[in-house]
Amino acid sequence: MAEIIRSIRTDMADESRVVGAGTQARVDHGGMGEGIEIERDGDEEVSITRVHVNNQQGEQKVGKPIGSYITLDIPGIHGRSRDLYEKACRMLARELERLIHLDKKDTVLIVGLGNWNVTADALGPKVAQSVLVTRHIYEYLPKEVDETTRPVCAISPGVLGITGIETGHIIKGIVDNIKPSLVIAIDALASRNVNRVNSSIQIANTGIAPGSGVGNRRTALTRETLGVPVIAIGIPTVVDAATMVSDTLDLIIDSMMEQAGAGSDFYRMLSQINRDEKYQMIIELLEPYSGNLVVTPKDTDDVVDYLSRLVVNGINMALHENIGPDDVDRFLQ
Amino acid sequence: MAEIIRSIRTDMADESRVVGAGTQARVDHGGMGEGIEIERDGDEEVSITRVHVNNQQGEQKVGKPIGSYITLDIPGIHGRSRDLYEKACRMLARELERLIHLDKKDTVLIVGLGNWNVTADALGPKVAQSVLVTRHIYEYLPKEVDETTRPVCAISPGVLGITGIETGHIIKGIVDNIKPSLVIAIDALASRNVNRVNSSIQIANTGIAPGSGVGNRRTALTRETLGVPVIAIGIPTVVDAATMVSDTLDLIIDSMMEQAGAGSDFYRMLSQINRDEKYQMIIELLEPYSGNLVVTPKDTDDVVDYLSRLVVNGINMALHENIGPDDVDRFLQ
Amino acid sequence: MAEIIRSIRTDMADESRVVGAGTQARVDHGGMGEGIEIERDGDEEVSITRVHVNNQQGEQKVGKPIGSYITLDIPGIHGRSRDLYEKACRMLARELERLIHLDKKDTVLIVGLGNWNVTADALGPKVAQSVLVTRHIYEYLPKEVDETTRPVCAISPGVLGITGIETGHIIKGIVDNIKPSLVIAIDALASRNVNRVNSSIQIANTGIAPGSGVGNRRTALTRETLGVPVIAIGIPTVVDAATMVSDTLDLIIDSMMEQAGAGSDFYRMLSQINRDEKYQMIIELLEPYSGNLVVTPKDTDDVVDYLSRLVVNGINMALHENIGPDDVDRFLQ
Amino acid sequence: MAEIIRSIRTDMADESRVVGAGTQARVDHGGMGEGIEIERDGDEEVSITRVHVNNQQGEQKVGKPIGSYITLDIPGIHGRSRDLYEKACRMLARELERLIHLDKKDTVLIVGLGNWNVTADALGPKVAQSVLVTRHIYEYLPKEVDETTRPVCAISPGVLGITGIETGHIIKGIVDNIKPSLVIAIDALASRNVNRVNSSIQIANTGIAPGSGVGNRRTALTRETLGVPVIAIGIPTVVDAATMVSDTLDLIIDSMMEQAGAGSDFYRMLSQINRDEKYQMIIELLEPYSGNLVVTPKDTDDVVDYLSRLVVNGINMALHENIGPDDVDRFLQ
Repeated sequence: MAEIIRSIRTDMADESRVVGAGTQARVDHGGMGEGIEIERDGDEEVSITRVHVNNQQGEQKVGKPIGSYITLDIPGIHGRSRDLYEKACRMLARELERLIHLDKKDTVLIVGLGNWNVTADALGPKVAQSVLVTRHIYEYLPKEVDETTRPVCAISPGVLGITGIETGHIIKGIVDNIKPSLVIAIDALASRNVNRVNSSIQIANTGIAPGSGVGNRRTALTRETLGVPVIAIGIPTVVDAATMVSDTLDLIIDSMMEQAGAGSDFYRMLSQINRDEKYQMIIELLEPYSGNLVVTPKDTDDVVDYLSRLVVNGINMALHENIGPDDVDRFLQ
Repeated sequence: MAEIIRSIRTDMADESRVVGAGTQARVDHGGMGEGIEIERDGDEEVSITRVHVNNQQGEQKVGKPIGSYITLDIPGIHGRSRDLYEKACRMLARELERLIHLDKKDTVLIVGLGNWNVTADALGPKVAQSVLVTRHIYEYLPKEVDETTRPVCAISPGVLGITGIETGHIIKGIVDNIKPSLVIAIDALASRNVNRVNSSIQIANTGIAPGSGVGNRRTALTRETLGVPVIAIGIPTVVDAATMVSDTLDLIIDSMMEQAGAGSDFYRMLSQINRDEKYQMIIELLEPYSGNLVVTPKDTDDVVDYLSRLVVNGINMALHENIGPDDVDRFLQ
Repeated sequence: MAEIIRSIRTDMADESRVVGAGTQARVDHGGMGEGIEIERDGDEEVSITRVHVNNQQGEQKVGKPIGSYITLDIPGIHGRSRDLYEKACRMLARELERLIHLDKKDTVLIVGLGNWNVTADALGPKVAQSVLVTRHIYEYLPKEVDETTRPVCAISPGVLGITGIETGHIIKGIVDNIKPSLVIAIDALASRNVNRVNSSIQIANTGIAPGSGVGNRRTALTRETLGVPVIAIGIPTVVDAATMVSDTLDLIIDSMMEQAGAGSDFYRMLSQINRDEKYQMIIELLEPYSGNLVVTPKDTDDVVDYLSRLVVNGINMALHENIGPDDVDRFLQ
Repeated sequence: MAEIIRSIRTDMADESRVVGAGTQARVDHGGMGEGIEIERDGDEEVSITRVHVNNQQGEQKVGKPIGSYITLDIPGIHGRSRDLYEKACRMLARELERLIHLDKKDTVLIVGLGNWNVTADALGPKVAQSVLVTRHIYEYLPKEVDETTRPVCAISPGVLGITGIETGHIIKGIVDNIKPSLVIAIDALASRNVNRVNSSIQIANTGIAPGSGVGNRRTALTRETLGVPVIAIGIPTVVDAATMVSDTLDLIIDSMMEQAGAGSDFYRMLSQINRDEKYQMIIELLEPYSGNLVVTPKDTDDVVDYLSRLVVNGINMALHENIGPDDVDRFLQ
C-alpha cells in the first residue's frame, strides 16, 4: 500500500465496482446479466458476498478478470468479542477452502505484501511472520513431519522504497526456485468507504494486479506472471484523505439538494457543481501531502495486529488438515 | 492524544486562536490591543512566532492563561535536508533557553506524554526515551559527574487506557518525591490544519491543560498542580478527520460564494448553510469511527521518529552547558 | 534486571537458598527445623514448592523475611504445548489467589519492573502492557463497569539508567496518590541455574528487596516502604555468565574428584583448588564485559513474550471474578 | 545465526584459524610460508589485519578458499565515543573500497542475513533496512537520479525457521532477476572469543559458506552459486555458551599446570584430562538448552543497533561517489 509507485486505489472487484456500499441494487443477477453470478451467504455478524465473473461478457461489465471475488463484512469486529473473532476465523477458512484445489502435499507460498514500517500497511508482513511454516521440516527433517500438515512457506518481500527491487521480481525468483502449487498474497488496501476500514476481508482468486499509472511496471502477482494460481486476501486499513473528503462532500451536496427540493434554484445551482473540479480543489487544499494523507482509526496499530491474527487463523485452518475450528490461535507463530 | 478521555482538540494558544494560518491579520499588536504582544523571528525556513499574553485583558482576548506561546514553523522539514534539521534543532534550543530560568545544577524532569503503541501519539515517549538522562549519575556516581551537565530525568507515564491511572497523578507523585525545578512535557497534538502536521513545533510556558469535557478530570500539568514551572512542547501529528472534512468544506463553500458573487441568489443560499449542522452531518457520516478517525501522512512512523530526535536535540542543547550547536545527534540515547 | 545499579543476583528465597537445584535435601521440614514449612504440590508438568518462613528463627535459617515463597517449575514449557500453557496459567492463578486477600472492589496496582529495551529484561513491562486494566472505567465511566471485575491499574516505571529516577520513588508516588490495596510487581530474574531459565515462576508475598551493594539505595517495594502488601512474581530469564562458568567448573572438578577416588593424590590436589580464586580468575577472563555478560537462550525474544502472556493470564484470572479457567488468552490487551 | 540448521560456528578465516587472539605468532609471513600474505594496518583504536590466501597451498594452510580476509578490531567501541565511531565508519569504508572493483553505474545488492526477531541476530536485517537504496530511482524516476550515486538495492531474506525457504534460494532468484554486479552480505557471527563480541568487523571477498553439518544443504552465497562476486561483512555478537565455558576451563587448567610446575604429579594429571570429554560434559551440563545457549552482553539490543549504523555508513561511503568521510549518519534511512 505504501509503495511509492502504487497508486492508492482499491485492488479488488468488490470494493470499487461490484458490491460497494450503496450500490447493491447494481449487483443482483438480473441487473448484471450474463457472465456475472452473485451469491450471498453468512449472517448479520459475518455477511459474505461472492461475485463470480464467468466470461468475457462479465469481465466487461465489472471491469475485472474472470474469477471469484469474495467479501466478508464483519461490521462488529471492532467490539473485540472473542466469539465473533473465532467465528470470523472459521468463516474465512471456509471461504479459502472453497477456492483452494490442491493435493494433500502440495506446497503453498504465503506472500505478505506491504511495508512493515508503516502501521496501516504492515498487515501482510505480520501475516507472513505469524503463519505456520512447515516446508523446511519437509525438506530437512522429514522424519519429524506431522503427516496432517502441508508444506507451507512464507515471505515478506518488502516494498520498492525499502528494497529498490520490484516485489514481482522477488516473488518470481522464489516461485521459480521452489515451485509452489499455490501462492496466497496478503495486502492492506485503501478503501473508498470509511465503514469498511478494518472490518471487511476481500478475497480473489485472480491474483493482485496493481492499478493503473506507473504501478503497472511492477510485475503483477497472477497466474500469468508466476505460472501458478494466486489467491489474494486484502483488508482495507485506510481511506485516502482526498477521496474521503470528496465522497463526504458529495453526500452533503446530495443532502442539500434533497432539502432544497427538485424544482428550486438552489437545487439547480448545486447540481451544476463540477464534481471533478471539486476533487481537484480538495487535492490542492490537502497539499503538500496530497496523495499521501490517509484517514485511519487512531488505534490502527492494535487493529492491524488483531486482523493479521484473524487472517493467519483462516489460512492455517484452510491449509492444514489437522488444524480445525477449535484451533483458533493455537498455531500462531 | 490517544487518551480516551482527552478530546481531540488543540492544546495551545497559537494553533487555534492566535496565529493560525490564514488568520495572521488578527494577531498584529494593534489589533489585539493591550495585554498581547507578538514577535516574529527566524526566516522562511524556520519562522518563529512568539505570542506573549501579559495580563488578564490578554487572557480574555486569546482565551489562554498569562504566559508565552511560541511556534516554530518549518514547512520544508519533510524534505529531510540535514542542514535544515540541524538548524531546526538549534532554533528550538534557543527558544527553550529563552524560557528556562534555572541555576546550573537545578534538576529538570522530562515528561513524554502520549501512547507509545499509537504511532502518531508516540512522540512524547520517544523523546523521553532518547533524551540525555543524568540525574542518577549525580545521585549514585557523583565522582563520575561531568560538571558541565545538569541533572535531568525523564519518564513516559503512558495513557489512561493503558495504565488506568491519570497521567497527572503519576507525574504529581514523582514531582513530590524528586522535587525538580522544572518540568518539560512533550506531547503529540491534533491540529486543525493539515499543513501544520509534522512541520510545526509549539512551545508554551504555561503547562498542558487538557481541554474541556471529561478530560479536565485529569490533573493538568501546570505550575498550580505540580508546584513547579511547566514548559510544554507539542507537535501536531494528526488532524481530526471530521474537522478536516468540515474545514475543507468551508473553504469550498467560500470559494463557491466568491465565484457566485456577493449579490447572487446562490451566494445568499450558500451563506445560509448552517455550519454547525454540517459538522454534525459529517460526524454522522464518519460513524462508526467518529471521534477516532484521524488524518495522517502515510509515513507517520518515520516522521515521528525524526521529529522526536529533533526535539531531543533541542532539549539536550538547552539544558546542558556542554552541549552546543555542533553536537546535533551526539547525545541521542 | 538491567538496572545499572542492581547487582545481577537472584532476588527470591527459593532460587538461591531454599530449594535450589541439588540442594533439596536442605529443605525438608525436619532439616530446617522450627520456623520453616515446606509444601510440595502439583505434578511432573507443573511442580509447586511453597516455602513458608513463619518466624524470626525461620528468617535466620533461610536469610529471607517472614512470608511465603512459591516456585512453579514447568520444565516442559519450552515445548510450547497449548495444553501445558493453559495448565500453567491456571496453576499460577491458583497460587496467586491463595496469597491475595482482598475485598471484591479493592484496587490492585500491577508494576512491571525492568527495561523494555533489553529483551531478557522486558518481562515486567510486557506484563504491565498486556494485563487487563479497569480502574479508569471505575473512575470515569462508572456506568460501564462490569461488576464482576475489580479495579486494576498498571505501570512500567522503567529503569534508573533510562529515567534517572529510582523505581521505588516512582512507585511510592503513585501508591500515595491512588492508594491501591495491593501491589503485584513482576520482574525478570537472573538465575544461578541454567535449567531454570524461562521455565520457573517464583512468587513471594514479601515484596522485592533489591540485593546488596549500591542497589539498596533504591527504595525497595515492600509493605514497609509502600504501606500496602506487595506480591512479587519473577521469572529467571538469564544466567550471569561468570556464575555459569564457575558453577559448571565446580561440577567438572567434582566429577574429576569422583573419578580420581577419595584417597588419590589427584583428589587431594583438586580439593585444594581455591574456589574463590577460581571465580576471580573467571571474572578476569570475561573482561571487559565482566558483570554484564549473560547467558541466555537464542530465542529469548520469543520466550519472554510467551511467558509474559502466561503471567498476564494468571493475574487476570486471580484478580477478576468473571475470568475463569476457560478464559486463557481472552483478556490479553 | 539463529537459523536452525546453521551450526553456531564462526564463518570466516581470521576468527578461528588465522589471527585469533593469542595465536598471532602463527601468522607472520615466514611461519605461514608461501600462499599466505599478512598485512597489518591502522592503529590502536582501529587495528586492521588483512590475510590474503593466494593459492592452493595457502588454502590448505588456513583451510579457507583463495581470497582476502580482513578484520577491523575496535576494542574501545563500547565507549561510544563519537570520534571513534566516525573513524571506524571511515576505516570500514576504505577497506570495502579496496575490495570492490566496479564501474560507476554497476548495481549492488545488499543482503541482510539473520533473524530480525532475535536481538543478537538482527544485525543483517538492520543494515539492509537502513542502507541507502537507489535502484528504484534509476528504474522508475531516471530524471531524479543523483548522478553521483550508484544503483543499490537491499533485502533481508529472513531465516529458514521463519520462511521455510533456504536463504540461498531466495537470493539466487533475486540475483537471476535483477543481475547485480556485486552482492554484499551482512551477518551476525558467533565468536570463540568474548573479547571480540561487538568489537570486531570481519570482511571477506569469498562469500559466506555456512559451516559443516546439515547447514551445507543451504546454498552458500558465493561467486560459484550466484554468478557474481560476494563480499561478506560479519560482526560477532554472541559466543556459544559451551564454547565459552570450555575455553575458559582450558585457560584455568593451563594456569593450574603452570602453577603446579612441569615436573609435578598434578601437572601430569591435569595434562591427562581429555579435553574432548570435557567439552562433552559441558554440553550435557548445559542441557536442555545445549546448542542454543549464547553468551551476550546485556545491552546487546542497543549495541547491535549502533553497529548496524556503523556498517551502513561504511557501505554507503564505499558505494556512492558523493558520500564522503564527512557524511557519517547523513544517509541513514
